[in-house]
Amino acid sequence: MATAVAGPEIERLIQLLARLPGLGPRSARRAALHLIKKREALMAPLTAALQTAMDKVQVCKTCGNLDTQNPCTVCTDVRRDPSMIVVVADVADLWALERAHAVNSRYHVLGGTLSPLDGVGPQDLTIDALISRVHDEPIKEVILALNATVDGQTTAHYITELLQDADVKVTRLAHGVPVGGELDYLDEGTLAAAIKQRTLF
Amino acid sequence: MATAVAGPEIERLIQLLARLPGLGPRSARRAALHLIKKREALMAPLTAALQTAMDKVQVCKTCGNLDTQNPCTVCTDVRRDPSMIVVVADVADLWALERAHAVNSRYHVLGGTLSPLDGVGPQDLTIDALISRVHDEPIKEVILALNATVDGQTTAHYITELLQDADVKVTRLAHGVPVGGELDYLDEGTLAAAIKQRTLF
Repeated sequence: MATAVAGPEIERLIQLLARLPGLGPRSARRAALHLIKKREALMAPLTAALQTAMDKVQVCKTCGNLDTQNPCTVCTDVRRDPSMIVVVADVADLWALERAHAVNSRYHVLGGTLSPLDGVGPQDLTIDALISRVHDEPIKEVILALNATVDGQTTAHYITELLQDADVKVTRLAHGVPVGGELDYLDEGTLAAAIKQRTLF
Repeated sequence: MATAVAGPEIERLIQLLARLPGLGPRSARRAALHLIKKREALMAPLTAALQTAMDKVQVCKTCGNLDTQNPCTVCTDVRRDPSMIVVVADVADLWALERAHAVNSRYHVLGGTLSPLDGVGPQDLTIDALISRVHDEPIKEVILALNATVDGQTTAHYITELLQDADVKVTRLAHGVPVGGELDYLDEGTLAAAIKQRTLF
């Protein structure tokens, strides 16, 4: 019925918007209407920005980041510490660490984590490329910034073993109480880790 | 900092996506990443759909609906009852009534409601065009499907007065308990209206 109201072109726009994470069918409809009403102020620049991203965004051949230059802005930034490399599962994790100004080094994006159940093996990730970088670049420390999930930790263990003979320190993120977090709401594993890895005040 | 990670083009895409209703800065970032990753499956068709909408969508000169044809699909649909016209504030309301299969008639989109506080007067809405349509078309009933807010009801009263001399019945939506709604959560005004306008079981 909705097709009969607004024409198949608008209906198609709504369907595509609904496939964005965070937008359901209802909010996609609202978003489409908003775009059509803000034709010059929003729809035109968004269309152009998508086209630019289509044309220009590439996967960095060194680290796997997404950028409009290749190698990416992070890899070509000479002010970054070349002796450390932060291993992340996804580009989103790289962006999150950069937003937090957590570290001033380069990254390596694996493209996921090992997951036997989902059929993701080492050959599906950029693990070989990581090992090559560790040997070729002047890297002294590999920081495994992987999710504290079963798959994340399996991947961390796998990489650690591959790097056993390399002359690098392999570290992982600290477990502990999130900043602003209340003890009462934390799981036992996190609390135990936070006590065990306590630091001097 | 985020600009330094992903390049200004991606940052601009994120900023524009964040202006869609329902997406905040965080979900816009996720949506942008999702689009870039699903380049062929989602970003390309979405870009094309936006371009098509840019090129083709127009405001119907008769009723104010948005469509790729003008007059719109609803206005040109000969199976609709020409003796009724449903007055709505916004295209979103027209689409909502159509999705509900609520009525099989034509519409008139006012483009908003009278709102003295926001400086919206009768000249800012398509009220003149509505009055002309009521006189020119074979209309017997005008259904005011406006929000049950102060502005919506002010607008309804204003239009009712203008149509006093026209030979048409002016009706409005029923007040009552929403289907699936629990009495306990309803406001007193709705409950009083639901009792007053009770129907035979």
